[in-house]
Amino acid sequence: MGKIKRNERIGVMIRILTDRPNHIFNLNEFSELFSVSKPTISEDIVIIKDLMAEFSLGQIETVTGAAGGVKFIPKPNLAEVIPFIEEICNILSEPGRILPGGFVYMSDILYMPNMVKKLGEILAWHFIDTRPDFVITVETKGIPVAMATAEALNCPMVIARRDSKATEGPVVTINYVSASSKRIQTMSLARRAVKEGQRGLIVDDFMKGGGTAKGLCGLLREFNIDVAGIGVVVSTHVPSKKMVDDYKSIIILKEVDEETGEVIMEPASWLYA
Amino acid sequence: MGKIKRNERIGVMIRILTDRPNHIFNLNEFSELFSVSKPTISEDIVIIKDLMAEFSLGQIETVTGAAGGVKFIPKPNLAEVIPFIEEICNILSEPGRILPGGFVYMSDILYMPNMVKKLGEILAWHFIDTRPDFVITVETKGIPVAMATAEALNCPMVIARRDSKATEGPVVTINYVSASSKRIQTMSLARRAVKEGQRGLIVDDFMKGGGTAKGLCGLLREFNIDVAGIGVVVSTHVPSKKMVDDYKSIIILKEVDEETGEVIMEPASWLYA
Repeated sequence: MGKIKRNERIGVMIRILTDRPNHIFNLNEFSELFSVSKPTISEDIVIIKDLMAEFSLGQIETVTGAAGGVKFIPKPNLAEVIPFIEEICNILSEPGRILPGGFVYMSDILYMPNMVKKLGEILAWHFIDTRPDFVITVETKGIPVAMATAEALNCPMVIARRDSKATEGPVVTINYVSASSKRIQTMSLARRAVKEGQRGLIVDDFMKGGGTAKGLCGLLREFNIDVAGIGVVVSTHVPSKKMVDDYKSIIILKEVDEETGEVIMEPASWLYA
Repeated sequence: MGKIKRNERIGVMIRILTDRPNHIFNLNEFSELFSVSKPTISEDIVIIKDLMAEFSLGQIETVTGAAGGVKFIPKPNLAEVIPFIEEICNILSEPGRILPGGFVYMSDILYMPNMVKKLGEILAWHFIDTRPDFVITVETKGIPVAMATAEALNCPMVIARRDSKATEGPVVTINYVSASSKRIQTMSLARRAVKEGQRGLIVDDFMKGGGTAKGLCGLLREFNIDVAGIGVVVSTHVPSKKMVDDYKSIIILKEVDEETGEVIMEPASWLYA
């Protein structure tokens, strides 16, 4: 291939950087790819940084030091976050979503890749400074958003199972109490999934009483792992006192009226900050 | 903001296009974003197309017609697919991965975002011409790769559950026979998750006898949904006769020796085509 022009280098680098969020690329990699000097690549990076900022397409960060380089952080476009969450609230408030028991059907949103990706990026952006080593969820409905969060953070995801499985090897199992049903439940995590001293970010689709999140905290404690944070997509307004104190949810479920079929959801107030 | 230069437009468009695979962007959107004419955007697109092809960063396709525009297809870099799959085979063949019963521990790979993303892109690229309306998997371990496949195809994912849940609403439940254990198992799919006449792509992490895939085919039949294809990450060499005829797996598990601890895995032959 012939000499690559600056505009081409910029396009290629944006593609490579954004394809792998939070991964540090050494400038030598780009220098070799395009057969140009490192100072030239550094100039390109400055242009990319400004361009991404100007169009709210995410953040480019230069990392200094021996393992240094440049990385892309999928900073959500803040002007679009509230309208996006409002759109989800509108969809989830459509008639016919209320299920017996007052549940709201949310699986279509929770399993729609382009929506889940943005939800994961919102959680990742909020928790990035807590420096989690992994994202943990309990099966099943929170897995896609946990995965999207882990992708944005460039860390592994791990899944606690409701039953222990032969494909997981030795597990640690705990009992916990569901806040709503008061029933004893169990969850298990493979011993080899995580390491002592790591930090785990808890992500789930839904929180009512907080029993599951508290269960996950207890499970991590068994592994001597610190909880970096707790993030959920939807939490209920009632009960306001959850079994965990410190959590962030993107959407607040204010009301579900099984009689009238009315659902009231709204973006959490911290999103406006 | 001032007048945007071509090199900046190219960078921004690459970021926007690749952030949402297989979504058709109307050229007017870009024309308005940059305040330049549509023919200028068309010229930009030609440059982007060539650039992406030259660096094997995916495929840009122009879609004609009223709903036309331009889209990004995450075509895997074919020169990197075999080395990437060989790397996974090497990791999965490391000592200590064999679990009682001859299972191989694979969860770390299956839950690692950057690996899963590439696996999903390989499956999506293979099945894209089957035009699936959604990707379906059965909980739990196949969910991340099913999600990655759905993201690359720009379609929803749906999850069949082992038990029916109150949060899914009315479900259709079937029984099926696990090929290995010969035990009767059940799986359920929410009625509202899919629509009659659609096409579903089955994706899972592992196939031994093919009982689960056959079960998913039966489940889709209850909804009058055609099977677009069956794709799995790992399938076993033995038994060579599976309960489904037509499937593609990325990796073949040739041998697991519980005595010696040896695991032999290799990339499937179709990947070399």
